[in-house]
Amino acid sequence: MSTPPPRAVVLLSGGLDSATALAVAAQDGFACHALTIAYGQRHAVEVEAAARVAAALGAVEHRVMHLDLRAFGGSALTADIPVPEHRSALEMASGIPATYVPARNTIFLALALAYAEVIGAFDIYVGVNSIDYSGYPDCRPEFIRAFEALANLATKVGVEGGRFHVHAPLIQLPKADIIRLGASLGVDHGLTHSCYAPTPGGLACGKCDSCLLRKAGFETAGVPDPTRYAAGAG
Amino acid sequence: MSTPPPRAVVLLSGGLDSATALAVAAQDGFACHALTIAYGQRHAVEVEAAARVAAALGAVEHRVMHLDLRAFGGSALTADIPVPEHRSALEMASGIPATYVPARNTIFLALALAYAEVIGAFDIYVGVNSIDYSGYPDCRPEFIRAFEALANLATKVGVEGGRFHVHAPLIQLPKADIIRLGASLGVDHGLTHSCYAPTPGGLACGKCDSCLLRKAGFETAGVPDPTRYAAGAG
Repeated sequence: MSTPPPRAVVLLSGGLDSATALAVAAQDGFACHALTIAYGQRHAVEVEAAARVAAALGAVEHRVMHLDLRAFGGSALTADIPVPEHRSALEMASGIPATYVPARNTIFLALALAYAEVIGAFDIYVGVNSIDYSGYPDCRPEFIRAFEALANLATKVGVEGGRFHVHAPLIQLPKADIIRLGASLGVDHGLTHSCYAPTPGGLACGKCDSCLLRKAGFETAGVPDPTRYAAGAG
Repeated sequence: MSTPPPRAVVLLSGGLDSATALAVAAQDGFACHALTIAYGQRHAVEVEAAARVAAALGAVEHRVMHLDLRAFGGSALTADIPVPEHRSALEMASGIPATYVPARNTIFLALALAYAEVIGAFDIYVGVNSIDYSGYPDCRPEFIRAFEALANLATKVGVEGGRFHVHAPLIQLPKADIIRLGASLGVDHGLTHSCYAPTPGGLACGKCDSCLLRKAGFETAGVPDPTRYAAGAG
């Protein structure tokens, strides 16, 4: 008799980072339970991408939790604030962008923690990286470590001696390396979605920070870019 | 010209603890923005109580965020698990009860943090107490301090030097003292709701841990108990 693999919760947005994090979790030997938060973001097409990615990478379960962060607003992704376009790498590196969603990763990790505790998982995977998104405070290693410490104080299983581990396998990788890693692990990048401001039909704008980072990443990685851009994009 | 009072976010469940926390925040001089999470709990009548309490105590705003934690289950409050009845104080003190909702306070504080960041508040009030609910890991002082540390790493304003303060003014108080404090601050306890398993009409069962603690608290405090119990309760 073989023991079943341990379970992990993977936060899956439908973008290429979280898809790669899911592939890493599967490679690490976990039975992956993917969790997508539909938070009222402009790019809700991400949620559909997440379902495709979860299926393609063999997640044993994919749950979608609805939480309308538009009730708070405060971000270009959740309120009527323009998504920045055509910014240079230098501009992206200077300060926290308008697409920052207040406390988003704290909320998402808290929900992942709840899910993990209910299914008996001690491992949570999240696709944050601190290189390309240097402006997002909740993508930094010190944030991840602080959340891990909190998780062990916050939960019944933590108090009883279990130890949660928050894995951020991409946190030190630039986008090109994430793309190469994903390709090596069988991620079908064509299923993923990154654009902050897609067309109603789901085509990428080619102009927002996320599109620009993605395009440059594929170029640097020397991997063909399967993204479907809107006419006139870029 | 007078400066407007600073803002605080108050997590308001509609129970007597969080109502008292709101009264303390108002007494401390804050303009109070109450936040209620409708999380699919059995006792949804709490949410209506929260609206009444927020109005009565002069909150400048009351937002209700919907987040269906029944998607995860794992608790007598969010899944088809019986709510314990007629437990003694000793039984309540021995371990984490079935009414524990996995990672609930981490999720709620994360949402309060997002709200606070959007409205420019640095103070969050929460009505947890570690005396009566000794079994809930996320009601302990070390949890609150860990969340406060996380908040300053997790947010744009924290990174920019702002400092969040999570106030848990009831954390060391037994229920009777909370009731006395609330009475002294003008809390109308008749507006609050504590029962985990109310009747469809919103009457308290008189049997669950929360009812038993509330009843005993009023008795010890020597304050008349305005709770409307179901016929045959207790």
